[in-house]
Amino acid sequence: MNRNIRTDLAIELREEMKDRQDLEGVNISTTVNEDQDIRTTVIDVLNEEGEKKLGKPKGTYITIESESIREFDEGIHMPLCRELARQLDILLEGADSILVAGLGNRAVTPDSLGPLVVDNLFITRHLKDCGVEGKKIISGICPGVMAQTGIETVEIIRGICENIDVDAVLAIDALAARSSRRLNRTIQLADTGISPGSGVGNHRKAVNQETIGVKVIALGVPTVISVPSIVNDSMDIMADAFNQSHGKALMETFTEEQRYALACNMVEPDLVDMFVTPKNIDELIKRISFTISEAINSMNA
Amino acid sequence: MNRNIRTDLAIELREEMKDRQDLEGVNISTTVNEDQDIRTTVIDVLNEEGEKKLGKPKGTYITIESESIREFDEGIHMPLCRELARQLDILLEGADSILVAGLGNRAVTPDSLGPLVVDNLFITRHLKDCGVEGKKIISGICPGVMAQTGIETVEIIRGICENIDVDAVLAIDALAARSSRRLNRTIQLADTGISPGSGVGNHRKAVNQETIGVKVIALGVPTVISVPSIVNDSMDIMADAFNQSHGKALMETFTEEQRYALACNMVEPDLVDMFVTPKNIDELIKRISFTISEAINSMNA
Amino acid sequence: MNRNIRTDLAIELREEMKDRQDLEGVNISTTVNEDQDIRTTVIDVLNEEGEKKLGKPKGTYITIESESIREFDEGIHMPLCRELARQLDILLEGADSILVAGLGNRAVTPDSLGPLVVDNLFITRHLKDCGVEGKKIISGICPGVMAQTGIETVEIIRGICENIDVDAVLAIDALAARSSRRLNRTIQLADTGISPGSGVGNHRKAVNQETIGVKVIALGVPTVISVPSIVNDSMDIMADAFNQSHGKALMETFTEEQRYALACNMVEPDLVDMFVTPKNIDELIKRISFTISEAINSMNA
Amino acid sequence: MNRNIRTDLAIELREEMKDRQDLEGVNISTTVNEDQDIRTTVIDVLNEEGEKKLGKPKGTYITIESESIREFDEGIHMPLCRELARQLDILLEGADSILVAGLGNRAVTPDSLGPLVVDNLFITRHLKDCGVEGKKIISGICPGVMAQTGIETVEIIRGICENIDVDAVLAIDALAARSSRRLNRTIQLADTGISPGSGVGNHRKAVNQETIGVKVIALGVPTVISVPSIVNDSMDIMADAFNQSHGKALMETFTEEQRYALACNMVEPDLVDMFVTPKNIDELIKRISFTISEAINSMNA
Repeated sequence: MNRNIRTDLAIELREEMKDRQDLEGVNISTTVNEDQDIRTTVIDVLNEEGEKKLGKPKGTYITIESESIREFDEGIHMPLCRELARQLDILLEGADSILVAGLGNRAVTPDSLGPLVVDNLFITRHLKDCGVEGKKIISGICPGVMAQTGIETVEIIRGICENIDVDAVLAIDALAARSSRRLNRTIQLADTGISPGSGVGNHRKAVNQETIGVKVIALGVPTVISVPSIVNDSMDIMADAFNQSHGKALMETFTEEQRYALACNMVEPDLVDMFVTPKNIDELIKRISFTISEAINSMNA
Repeated sequence: MNRNIRTDLAIELREEMKDRQDLEGVNISTTVNEDQDIRTTVIDVLNEEGEKKLGKPKGTYITIESESIREFDEGIHMPLCRELARQLDILLEGADSILVAGLGNRAVTPDSLGPLVVDNLFITRHLKDCGVEGKKIISGICPGVMAQTGIETVEIIRGICENIDVDAVLAIDALAARSSRRLNRTIQLADTGISPGSGVGNHRKAVNQETIGVKVIALGVPTVISVPSIVNDSMDIMADAFNQSHGKALMETFTEEQRYALACNMVEPDLVDMFVTPKNIDELIKRISFTISEAINSMNA
Repeated sequence: MNRNIRTDLAIELREEMKDRQDLEGVNISTTVNEDQDIRTTVIDVLNEEGEKKLGKPKGTYITIESESIREFDEGIHMPLCRELARQLDILLEGADSILVAGLGNRAVTPDSLGPLVVDNLFITRHLKDCGVEGKKIISGICPGVMAQTGIETVEIIRGICENIDVDAVLAIDALAARSSRRLNRTIQLADTGISPGSGVGNHRKAVNQETIGVKVIALGVPTVISVPSIVNDSMDIMADAFNQSHGKALMETFTEEQRYALACNMVEPDLVDMFVTPKNIDELIKRISFTISEAINSMNA
Repeated sequence: MNRNIRTDLAIELREEMKDRQDLEGVNISTTVNEDQDIRTTVIDVLNEEGEKKLGKPKGTYITIESESIREFDEGIHMPLCRELARQLDILLEGADSILVAGLGNRAVTPDSLGPLVVDNLFITRHLKDCGVEGKKIISGICPGVMAQTGIETVEIIRGICENIDVDAVLAIDALAARSSRRLNRTIQLADTGISPGSGVGNHRKAVNQETIGVKVIALGVPTVISVPSIVNDSMDIMADAFNQSHGKALMETFTEEQRYALACNMVEPDLVDMFVTPKNIDELIKRISFTISEAINSMNA
C-alpha cells in the first residue's frame, strides 16, 4: 500500500485530464455488462509519449468496476468473479506455474487485501497431481512489509522465483485512489508489475519483469485515499465558500499535479503519512478478497 | 470508536476556546514530570455552566500525555505505566471487583485498542484465591461492535453487571482526536463513562453509571482523526493561499463548531463515515495497549 | 470446548452400547441422502430411563454426517448447507429473534469454531427493516472463555437475553469426539442446550432454557479428541500385541465408562488437560464454519 | 512443526538411552542456576559415531529448561531472557547481519511460535543507522508452511539469502517433545540448522548451512507431543494393568525406536497426522514467544 501518491489507478489519471479527446500514445476502450452492472475499461499505454501523458509505464491497465461490490449484493459475486477470471486468463496465458504474492501488512486492515487473498487460495504446487491436464500450478507467498522484515519485497519475490519454477508472478496489493467513489469498488489489473515509486523516479523497488525475471501481473483494489487527496477535493468548495472569484480563477489555472502539491502543503507534515479509509473496511476487504481468491481458484476449476 | 464528532478529548475542547481566562464551571490543573516527559492535566467540569461551556458532561477528565509514546522509546513505558496506575487507583478506589470492557472492533486496526488491552490482562475473577488481601477481582469482556452483534454495547455490559458482582466498569476504547499531534500519544481517563452520542443529544447508548448501575470509568486513546477535522485544519492555510482577506476575515468570525460544520459540508458525504489513521497504526496500537494492560495488571502486583 | 469427557456426541454414546436392540426411552431414526453422501440421525431421549441409558439429558439430538466434508469436496457444501438449514428451521420454528452465541476461544484453532461462525453471519437486529415479512432477527455474541473473561458463559448470555428481545439462543461450540472418524465431519444439533459438566453432575454452568430463560439450541462440531480416548482405542490392540488372553478377556468385562476411567489412569495427569487435533485443523475449521454460517444466513435468504 | 517423529529434542534422545555411562562421540555438560531455576545442558555430537548413537547430526545442541516458564511466574522472564541472549551471542558471534525466520503456521496455535517471535522483533535492516557501532542488522521473514505456499521453506529462505547480505539465519520453530514434562518449558538451540526429515533419510528439505549457504542456528520450543508418544507412554502401565509378566518382559526387550514403531501401529492411521497440545496453548505460546523475541532484541540493546 503506497499512500503518498495521487492515485494508483490509471483510470483516475485519465479522468483528471482536461482535454479528453487528444491523448496520443494511449488507447482506451470500455465494455459494459449492463445487466450485471460491471464496467471494464482497458487502457493501453503504447509508447513514451503515452507514458509521459498518463504518468504510467507502458503496458495494459484493465479496470473492472461495479457499484454493487460495496452494497453487499450477493448477486454481483459470481459475474464479477467470472469477469475477473476471464481477464486473468488472458493476462496469464501461457503461464503454467504462477506465484501469487499477497503484498501488504496483514495487521493493518485496509492493507491486508493481499494476505487475505492468498489465505483463501487453493494452493497446488506441492500436490502430486498438479500441473497435469493444463491445470495451473499455484504457489503463494505473503512477504510482509519493510517495517516487519527489513527486506524489500522485490528481494523476497526475486529470491523465490530464482529457486522455484515460476512462469509468472500475480502480485495482489491494496492501492490508493483519488476519489472515495472508487474505493473498494474497483479492481485494477496491469501487466506492468507494481512500481510503487515510479511517480517519484524511484525504480529500484519495482516488482516487475525487469527486476524479477518473469512476467509480473499486478492486481490491485483501492482501499485507501491519501490525506492530501481529501483536502484537494475540498479546495473548490472552499473557494466557493469564500465566494472568492480570485480563488476560483486561481484554482482553474492549476494542473492536477499542482493542486495535489498545494494540498500536500496544506496539511500537517505527519498527516502525509496517514491514510483515509471507511469504518467498515473489515467487511469490505473480507468481501472483495473473497471474490478475488475465488476468481483465481476458478482458473483451475 | 466514534469518528463523526469533532473530538473525544476534553483537553482539545479546552484548547479550542478563544478566551482561555474566563471558563466558569470548569477547573483545570496540570502536573508535569519533566524528567520523564509526562504531562497530566485534570479538567473538572463542575456544573451545568461548565457542561455547556466545554460540551462535556459533569465529571473529571484526566489527560496523560507523553511525546515519547510514539517514538518507541522503551524508557517511557515504565513511568507512563506508573502514572496511569496511580490515576486508576484513585478513580477505582473502593471498587474491589472490576469488569474491564474492551470496546471496539478487533478487525479494524485503529479500533482494536480495547480488545488488545483485555487480551493482555491478568484475569483473576475465576481463580480461587482472588479477592483476598485487598487484591482487585478482575474480569474482562470484549462485546464487539453493533455491526458484528446487532446489540448495543450498553445492553451487553449492563446484562453482565446484573449477573455478576461488579463494583465498577473500566471501559477501554479508541477515540477520535482533532489534531494529529495528540494521536496515539495521549491517554484520557474520565469518571463520566462513555457517551458516544452525547454531543448529538442521544443519551440512550451511553455506557455510564446511570445506564449500567455501577460506576463507569472510561479510558481512551485517540487513534483516529475524522475527515472533516483534516479539512477544517487546512481551511486557514487555504484562505492564506488564496491571499483572500475576505476569506480570512470570514474564518475569524466562525466558532470551532461552525468551522467543523462547514468542513463537514466541504467533504463528500461518504467521507464523513471514514477515518484518518497513521500507516504504522499496528505498531502504535500494540505498544500503547501493552502499556495500558500492564498498568491495570500492576494494580494487583 | 470441553475435552475431559468421553464424547459430546449422542451418536457415539449410542454406538458404544453393547446390546443395540434394547434401549428403552430412546428413539432413533436415520435418513440417508445417498447421492449427496449425507446421513442424518435423530436420537430422541424420551424420559429418565433414556437419560440414564444414554447419559444425555432428555431431548432431541440430530447428527448430520458427511464423509466428504473433510475431503475439501466443493460439491458437498451446498447440500450440507441445505440439510443443516432445514433442521435449524424446524428447531427454531416460532423464534423470530435469535441470538447466535459463538462459544469457545478464538485464539486456540480447534476451539475457534463458534467465533468464526459469528464472524461470518449476516447480523440484522440493528438494521431498520429487519424483522419484517417473516424474516428472522439475528444478533450475535462471542463471549470468550473463562480464562479470558473470568465470567461463566451462562452469566454473559443470560445477561444479554434479559436486556434484549430474544426468542431463542443458538449456541455454536467445538466438541470432543471419541473417534477420529467423526472429527470435523459431523454436525450435532440438540434442543437441550449445552451442558458441559452434565456428565460429572455439575449443572451449574449449563447454557439451557432453565438457566437462560429462552429456548437454547446447541450446534456443535467435534474438532478434538481427548487424550484418554486415544489410549482407550489402543488398549485392545495392545492386549492383542501382548497375545494375552487374560488381558483380552479382562477388556471384554469392562463397560465403556470403566475402560475410559482406566485410560485416564494410564496417562500422565497433565495430559488429561490436553487435546488431540489434526495438523490441518485451520483449514478444516475454516471450511466447516463457513458451511454453518451460510446455513444460518440462508434462513433469511 | 514436525509431529511424526519421536522427539525433536536431543536431550530426550539422550535420556532414552538405557546405558547412560557409555556414549562415545557425544559430550554432555550441564549448568544449573539454582536460584533462578534455570538448567542449561550442552550436548556436543562430535563425530559419526555420536550421530549414530544419538540420531542427531554432528553439532552442538543447547537446552535451556525452567520449570517456572509454564507457571506464569513473572520473575523468570528476565533471567531466562538473559541466559538465552548469552547463548545466542555465542552461537551468532561474528554474524553482523541476521535473518530471523519464523517458521510454522500462524493459523494453528501451537505452530505459531515462529511467526509470533518475528512479530515482536525490533527489525533494523531498513533503518539508516543500523549496522553501526557493532549493532546487529536484524531482518525477519515468516515463510508460511507448505500447505499455504506450495513452496519448501528452504527455497524461500535460500532465495532471500541469495538476494540480501546475511551472515546467519536464526530459524525459530515449534518442536515435538516426547514427554509432557518438557512441553512449553524448554528452549533448544542448535548450530546444525533444522532438519525436519533427517530421521527418515530425507535431507532435501533441511534448512542448514549446506542448503542455505550461510550458518543456520535453530531455536525451537516443544509445543506438541505426537499421538504415538502418548500411547507409547501408556504401554508399560497397560502391561501392568493386565498384570502380564509376558507383556512386561516383552516391553523390556524393545528399544525406544521399536516401542515407538509399535505405538504407531497401535493408533488409527489418521491419528498419526494429529498432535497433542495443552488447552491453554494460546497463553503458553504468547508468553514464551515474548521471552524469545526480547532475548533477540536484547542483543542490540
